[in-house]
Amino acid sequence: MAASNERIREVIDEYVRLVATGTADEIVALYADGATVEDPVGSDVLTTAEEIRAFYGGLEGLDTETRLVTARIAGGQAAFHFELVTKAGDATYTVTPIDVMAFDDDGKITSMRAFWSGDDMVIS
Amino acid sequence: MAASNERIREVIDEYVRLVATGTADEIVALYADGATVEDPVGSDVLTTAEEIRAFYGGLEGLDTETRLVTARIAGGQAAFHFELVTKAGDATYTVTPIDVMAFDDDGKITSMRAFWSGDDMVIS
Repeated sequence: MAASNERIREVIDEYVRLVATGTADEIVALYADGATVEDPVGSDVLTTAEEIRAFYGGLEGLDTETRLVTARIAGGQAAFHFELVTKAGDATYTVTPIDVMAFDDDGKITSMRAFWSGDDMVIS
Repeated sequence: MAASNERIREVIDEYVRLVATGTADEIVALYADGATVEDPVGSDVLTTAEEIRAFYGGLEGLDTETRLVTARIAGGQAAFHFELVTKAGDATYTVTPIDVMAFDDDGKITSMRAFWSGDDMVIS
């Protein structure tokens, strides 16, 4: 049976929280075996846990805050809009992607595709 | 060559406008031959122009206003959050789906997947 909307919402909340404050290992633990990551959409699809861990490892140590803007869940899948605000020196970089995720029956993420581009980044 | 971000943004704007004020034929004209529609995600996928036309025909004659909330475009694909407000009698029904679309090189929509559920509908 597909993961419930409630379970999927929990995983999204956890994902958004961990992107700001978690380790790459904690984020990878949200993913199912064999999961794929395409971030941003149009880039090479990451297909191994090692690649996914390396991808999120790039976020570790950054001074980042995140906030879920809105989530829509349907058919065991989800699309959600969230905000990442990263401070580096005197600059603040804000991106607000729309991520699309599929989940297995346990609520593990089986695919993630992030819609955003450098044009969407706001630097202040 | 993939449709430009500017072209895709035009098609999204046109789509959102036509969902409120257009005919089913006008909306179907935004789709490529062989396009698919899954609305909401998890429902049967519509695979013929006749099915897609019938789907949008259900919107004709409704007193609906639409508004694009935000769009993210990447790799010739897009995810966008929009609002539909439909008045029927004394009631107002508001849904704010996140739609995910792929496009061909001419900017015709090749697939549409709408993330929303009845739980997201606000009745006032």
